[in-house]
Amino acid sequence: MNGVEHLSEDQRSRVAWARIAEPDDRTARAMIAEHGVIEALEMARSGQSGRARASAERFASRLKDLNVERDLEITNKVGARVLFPTDPSWPKGVDGLDYVPWCLWVKGKDSASLAAMCQRSAAIVGARASTSYGEYVAAELAAGLAGRDFTVVSGAAFGIDAAAHRGALACEGDTIAVLAGGVERPYPAAHASLLARIAEVCAVVSEVPPGSAPTRSRFLARNRLIAAMSAGTVIVEAGLRSGSRSTVTHAVKLLRPVAAVPGPVTSMVSAGCHEEIRAGRAELVTDAAEVAELFGSIGGDLAPVKQGELRLSDDLEPDVFRVWQAMPTRRSTTVDALTHVAGLSVAEVMGALGQLEAAQLARRGPQGWMRCTP
Amino acid sequence: MNGVEHLSEDQRSRVAWARIAEPDDRTARAMIAEHGVIEALEMARSGQSGRARASAERFASRLKDLNVERDLEITNKVGARVLFPTDPSWPKGVDGLDYVPWCLWVKGKDSASLAAMCQRSAAIVGARASTSYGEYVAAELAAGLAGRDFTVVSGAAFGIDAAAHRGALACEGDTIAVLAGGVERPYPAAHASLLARIAEVCAVVSEVPPGSAPTRSRFLARNRLIAAMSAGTVIVEAGLRSGSRSTVTHAVKLLRPVAAVPGPVTSMVSAGCHEEIRAGRAELVTDAAEVAELFGSIGGDLAPVKQGELRLSDDLEPDVFRVWQAMPTRRSTTVDALTHVAGLSVAEVMGALGQLEAAQLARRGPQGWMRCTP
Repeated sequence: MNGVEHLSEDQRSRVAWARIAEPDDRTARAMIAEHGVIEALEMARSGQSGRARASAERFASRLKDLNVERDLEITNKVGARVLFPTDPSWPKGVDGLDYVPWCLWVKGKDSASLAAMCQRSAAIVGARASTSYGEYVAAELAAGLAGRDFTVVSGAAFGIDAAAHRGALACEGDTIAVLAGGVERPYPAAHASLLARIAEVCAVVSEVPPGSAPTRSRFLARNRLIAAMSAGTVIVEAGLRSGSRSTVTHAVKLLRPVAAVPGPVTSMVSAGCHEEIRAGRAELVTDAAEVAELFGSIGGDLAPVKQGELRLSDDLEPDVFRVWQAMPTRRSTTVDALTHVAGLSVAEVMGALGQLEAAQLARRGPQGWMRCTP
Repeated sequence: MNGVEHLSEDQRSRVAWARIAEPDDRTARAMIAEHGVIEALEMARSGQSGRARASAERFASRLKDLNVERDLEITNKVGARVLFPTDPSWPKGVDGLDYVPWCLWVKGKDSASLAAMCQRSAAIVGARASTSYGEYVAAELAAGLAGRDFTVVSGAAFGIDAAAHRGALACEGDTIAVLAGGVERPYPAAHASLLARIAEVCAVVSEVPPGSAPTRSRFLARNRLIAAMSAGTVIVEAGLRSGSRSTVTHAVKLLRPVAAVPGPVTSMVSAGCHEEIRAGRAELVTDAAEVAELFGSIGGDLAPVKQGELRLSDDLEPDVFRVWQAMPTRRSTTVDALTHVAGLSVAEVMGALGQLEAAQLARRGPQGWMRCTP
């Protein structure tokens, strides 16, 4: 976390790169990999070498408008801060990306704890054109994960994203919105108050400087940040062509666990989730406990085994169970009748009745044996 | 397929065992494994050896009533036939069971082709307390599989089973009902006309003789037959404690493929399906094509890849796609503006525009470049 006055030349160059090159710009990445952020910027500016000449042209239009001081002033003015990879609060998860962000803008109450918040976190993403089923499940998952001290990371979009943020906020959990445009620019505009609330209690994050528009390629680039800032990703509803499937792709590439919530096979907005499960890229999950088991600490977040209602008869041996089944429910019966119905010998039936009586599942009455209602 | 008059002593003994011992009776199985059906029956009758003495008592009550001739007469009278393991129409799949049926009662149009019908077959099973979603999907799956020449095998129960039978019947496909009681005894009674129709066009099957009641243990034993008579089993809706999960257990044990249809995680009647998928015992399927791929011939029943709507921009290179995205949709723009918005050099933008023009995704107008609506 840096005030403007303390920025090193490396950090200023990073702010410049965030302004002039798209997050997924391969030319910029190659130049920086070879020469470092400072020298690469200098080369783009001067256009000295053969490679740099072409590159200079690529960035020429935006270099003309570049003004790092002004960008930093605006950052301050909108109440944001710039995070750099060397900062202790830098979320380490993004360092596994092919294209590590040059820096991150964070607008929030406590940007110093961003790294800590991302430690135990879950991305919940999905369709904008979601159903009320999907929104309900997203909110329930978010609330359940927040209740287990997970930070809920999402993209503040309509539909599943918003439901996830709201589910976490509703139970005072941490939730981070990662935007494709500048952190000061609510997108979609209808979520201005949701984003203001997220910034107030937690953090809104972007890798592009304030003033940047959320273009389509930035949405795709943003999705990799959502995957990288989270311990795992869960998709709740996603069509076959949903952008949230690109988040899954990034999570898989980062070797992070991925979960998908199933839905009706008649709902096209669950088709992407089903495909991810079928392809073995996502594990089917049905509740927050299962997501926590998958994303949380090994052994520390085990989900309870789902076994349905336990029945008294579960532990009976086959012959004893057969006698119990052979007993009528509303009247009494004789041992002879039971040998016939159960297909067992008198001795076997007597033995079984003894066990059933001990387990309070049968009792002897004046007219014979009866089942007990426990 | 045997007329009464041609039955061997082995076959008559099998009919006797079907009458006196439950399908899952371990004592009878052990005796027959050691001595064969004929001698074991003799021992049960006379109670000679130490083991046989206890056994004789076990079967005594039912042996008193045993009358194989009468059972065979009734079989004829109700329009059924008895199949034995040596018959060519015996469904080979059941021979993989721990407890192979002693014989099978078949009531149907064409019981001679039972083995052939089971060759390419799918069991569709599920909850009795199903939802309209589950019934819709079961009927669709059955119709889709029947259309792919699969025989649909199920248990004629309320809910999913009935929807599966009806789905197959509706498109004149083959469907087999396997009952827990006698083949002449419609269970549930409300499905009398459904079962009559199945027997009329295909086959109703049971391993217990006519007159037998459908007891609980016979339902569980019946489930293993459904699994064994099918190339694979698909569960459509199943609660955590659904009996159809026992069919899955048998299919897994028989190394047959198992599929499960997902549903809303808010529906308890899909919870068993989700558990089977999570446990890796069933593969998630969403339509008949996917079931056919799983249960059908290798390479012969490949499901089409689900990829959603194809978009013209799918095949564009990243820089070309970026220029296309940078173009406004309703007005024209200049190359200079595109270099700025796309973050590319003039040469790169010009190159991209050339490709877009060739692909009819952009055109040059009087005021500059425009996106085309293809």
